[in-house]
Amino acid sequence: MALRTGDHGQAATNGLKEKVLTLDTMNPCVRKVEYAVRGPIVLRALELEQELRQGVKKPFTEVIRANIGDAQAMGQTPITFLRQVLALCVHPDLLNSPDFPDDAKRRAERILQACGGHSLGAYSISSGTQLIREDVARYIERRDGGIPADPNNIFLSTGASDAIVTLLKLLVAGEGRTRTGVLIPIPQYPLYSAALAELSAVQVDYYLDEERAWALDVAELRRALLQARDHCRPRALCIINPGNPTGQVQTRECIEAVIRFAFEEGLFLLADEVLAGAPAGRGRRAAARAPVTHPAVARPPVQVYQDNVYAEGSQFHSFKKVLTEMGPPYAARQELASFHSVSKGYMGECGFRGGYVELVNMDAAVQQQMQKLRSVRLCPPTPGQVLLDVAVSPPAPSDPSFAQFQAEKRAVLAELAAKAKLTEQVFNETPGIRCNPVQGAMYSFPRVQLPPRAVQRAQELGLAPDMFFCLRLLEETGICVVPGSGFGQREGTYHFRMTILPPMEKLRPLLETLSQFHAKFTREYS
Amino acid sequence: MALRTGDHGQAATNGLKEKVLTLDTMNPCVRKVEYAVRGPIVLRALELEQELRQGVKKPFTEVIRANIGDAQAMGQTPITFLRQVLALCVHPDLLNSPDFPDDAKRRAERILQACGGHSLGAYSISSGTQLIREDVARYIERRDGGIPADPNNIFLSTGASDAIVTLLKLLVAGEGRTRTGVLIPIPQYPLYSAALAELSAVQVDYYLDEERAWALDVAELRRALLQARDHCRPRALCIINPGNPTGQVQTRECIEAVIRFAFEEGLFLLADEVLAGAPAGRGRRAAARAPVTHPAVARPPVQVYQDNVYAEGSQFHSFKKVLTEMGPPYAARQELASFHSVSKGYMGECGFRGGYVELVNMDAAVQQQMQKLRSVRLCPPTPGQVLLDVAVSPPAPSDPSFAQFQAEKRAVLAELAAKAKLTEQVFNETPGIRCNPVQGAMYSFPRVQLPPRAVQRAQELGLAPDMFFCLRLLEETGICVVPGSGFGQREGTYHFRMTILPPMEKLRPLLETLSQFHAKFTREYS
Repeated sequence: MALRTGDHGQAATNGLKEKVLTLDTMNPCVRKVEYAVRGPIVLRALELEQELRQGVKKPFTEVIRANIGDAQAMGQTPITFLRQVLALCVHPDLLNSPDFPDDAKRRAERILQACGGHSLGAYSISSGTQLIREDVARYIERRDGGIPADPNNIFLSTGASDAIVTLLKLLVAGEGRTRTGVLIPIPQYPLYSAALAELSAVQVDYYLDEERAWALDVAELRRALLQARDHCRPRALCIINPGNPTGQVQTRECIEAVIRFAFEEGLFLLADEVLAGAPAGRGRRAAARAPVTHPAVARPPVQVYQDNVYAEGSQFHSFKKVLTEMGPPYAARQELASFHSVSKGYMGECGFRGGYVELVNMDAAVQQQMQKLRSVRLCPPTPGQVLLDVAVSPPAPSDPSFAQFQAEKRAVLAELAAKAKLTEQVFNETPGIRCNPVQGAMYSFPRVQLPPRAVQRAQELGLAPDMFFCLRLLEETGICVVPGSGFGQREGTYHFRMTILPPMEKLRPLLETLSQFHAKFTREYS
Repeated sequence: MALRTGDHGQAATNGLKEKVLTLDTMNPCVRKVEYAVRGPIVLRALELEQELRQGVKKPFTEVIRANIGDAQAMGQTPITFLRQVLALCVHPDLLNSPDFPDDAKRRAERILQACGGHSLGAYSISSGTQLIREDVARYIERRDGGIPADPNNIFLSTGASDAIVTLLKLLVAGEGRTRTGVLIPIPQYPLYSAALAELSAVQVDYYLDEERAWALDVAELRRALLQARDHCRPRALCIINPGNPTGQVQTRECIEAVIRFAFEEGLFLLADEVLAGAPAGRGRRAAARAPVTHPAVARPPVQVYQDNVYAEGSQFHSFKKVLTEMGPPYAARQELASFHSVSKGYMGECGFRGGYVELVNMDAAVQQQMQKLRSVRLCPPTPGQVLLDVAVSPPAPSDPSFAQFQAEKRAVLAELAAKAKLTEQVFNETPGIRCNPVQGAMYSFPRVQLPPRAVQRAQELGLAPDMFFCLRLLEETGICVVPGSGFGQREGTYHFRMTILPPMEKLRPLLETLSQFHAKFTREYS
């Protein structure tokens, strides 16, 4: 019955039919994708958890997943007000319940009014609910000291990853030597390398300077660009600030230099500001004078953390603000996309997949194309939109939920700051481990010395040396961290990424166990 | 400062810099994407709504969006039990509330136990929460009369669209004449054409037979395949059952013939069964004897609808079941992916973006590649996962929520059935409109005769004739439907897709208005 007497018909007859979709016939770009954060080491961690549940004897009693920035999985409690508003939106019968504060109810009613059929079950428009985009715009204006933000330039997304991939997708064109190149930092968050592989775009690496606390150096950007122009057409520059996995916060001077560079070289800027966390917004300035009265929440130190940035002397500057304040020609011309999410910061609401991108100076016709492209996927999930709305417009000092909200938020940020400090300190007291200050965000990326015999042993096993180290660490201690090779690092250096998210009572022993393991590993291979 | 003294450096100096990203330089595949369901007609509908709000005088008082299958936007009430369980998961303090039934609480506790940190705010594993995939597998087994389903072959997704695009992405390879071709029905749901354009795969059209109620004919599949082999390598066949936009339900004989064809020709089968709706599951068989006691819900007719299929003599058959029952060589060899979502059916929970795909006979190494690819996007939104879980395992007859759940569900399905019948009837009473039976799903796709002068006028305006008709309809009546040209149709025929979702009291006048408008339009251009 086959139309051609080729392989298919023949195989069908003798029953030895090959599969249609095999490693050899599948999309070769997808094969090239790698994603270390959920790679082989995490699959092994899952197996170990399974074995522990089955009663298999191990040198540890639990697997600690310090591989992924998933605060609530590590025990961080959700912020009550966010969940109250969302529960009211999900099940509006609760609007009659005396157990919810009035401001949560007003919020929920306001959001539901803006939904189709007054229900989260309706699609929103593809760029996200108009009201929520307006709230995001007002938040950005507050963050940036009054610089205007237009809701029409804001697209809500399914986590930040979704928006980042959309922007990269728009930018990819050309073939061979005219193929789009995209500059990304090394070390990087591997979403970038994965998306570029999938899109068959050219990844152009620029190295952050570990010796200067992962600073970004324009001379290095220029080197990377110049070399790349031999084999591709570089058209975009990605910056991750605060850094992932590196945890550094870029200075204002650095951001200005990057913007000048991008402008002069004709590069579209992608600013991944996900780890800046959500701001205190209108509530923040008032926080210092508002009493913390909620009895159930421990009173945090009085210090007010800006966003997710806790190192002294560090401050988060948004690319949008710096760009605008630089004035002409940059302010009105330089193209920029800035990404945010509700997964990180004090909210830690990863599972809801809420996020947004703000577009600055994008060509209007391209922006319409983006609108069209987004519409094919209908809309970002509405619950993530709701959480984003609450995160960008937290309770005001006059609201009944203000005190509890502030207390919960500050408790989370105070603990993160303490954990950042502890992590840096313990690592730097360990011979053979060196850790830059964790200035913001939730990751540390310490450098580890591995003895030459360990490197050789890893090579015999076909493993990256830091993968070998991390696998041994996991098998012997239950601690799951991600090898630096999954993020990229200078040749001959070895790192791992560890979140600072485990609760304090687990983090301290974890750090000590890790240090001891490194010492033992070093002795073993010396 | 520029490294090259080319355009960039020069332009920077004189301030006449071009944008990096323009229509000319952007991804050409993205430019080719079209998505009629949210295309220009919907943008115009949004503008009209805005104008009405501003008090602009129109020949109508509201815009009725019959363009998109968005039940709750059209006033359908969410199923109480689904929302109760989700509210409890979002805000677990409610587990102490006396206002929630015990079975909803048990469900929520069970789901939270399966979440990282017992919170929806944690990421799930990339393929979706293990417990929920197990529940989906058990549902599939019930649906298919006991044929086994393996949770490891089930991937939860962000709506069905997400999973469909993932599968297409895996399948795309080759260049020029070896480029992957994918057979899709015409008319089709435009996600398919959009995704194929974006992936630069070759769209291979096969036509459904309007004269035989949009039946699928293997001879036509063969014609399409044969012609396509001249210029590409066809590797996959998409079937939409129940049909979107066409609303037909394929017979078992037809499905068997399609499976034989795919097997013989070496095609991966993609079965879009989204519109089958969620099944009654374990509760269904018992439904007839269970009393409907909830006073707030009108008692529906006793007839039990299977899923979303209401035409007499029509029955939904899953591809998985038919494939398995066909035995060797098909059962153990034919590759199949079957897609579902919580957006349609009696749930209508579009905004939550819940869905799943079941993979049958996929190569194990490719399935690992899919797992890896999915992990880059971290996880599907957890609230959609929760709703999916409840939809696939509704309350059992012994549960306190059973009676209300059944009553609400049957009320929705009974109304859909009545609206399907009314739609078909009114259209077929209208001269110049002909509508096949709406056997299932929520769409009608009537054929309209357009007078030659109207066709000519449309061409002068650079519009597809049915786009011209639909735009005029919108401007004069406020009724928003999607032109058939957005879905594909035989040359020289004209259609529109209209959902049957508006509430009965609006649907009847809407249908009559539409008929009258068609008569007027025909007179005007005769």
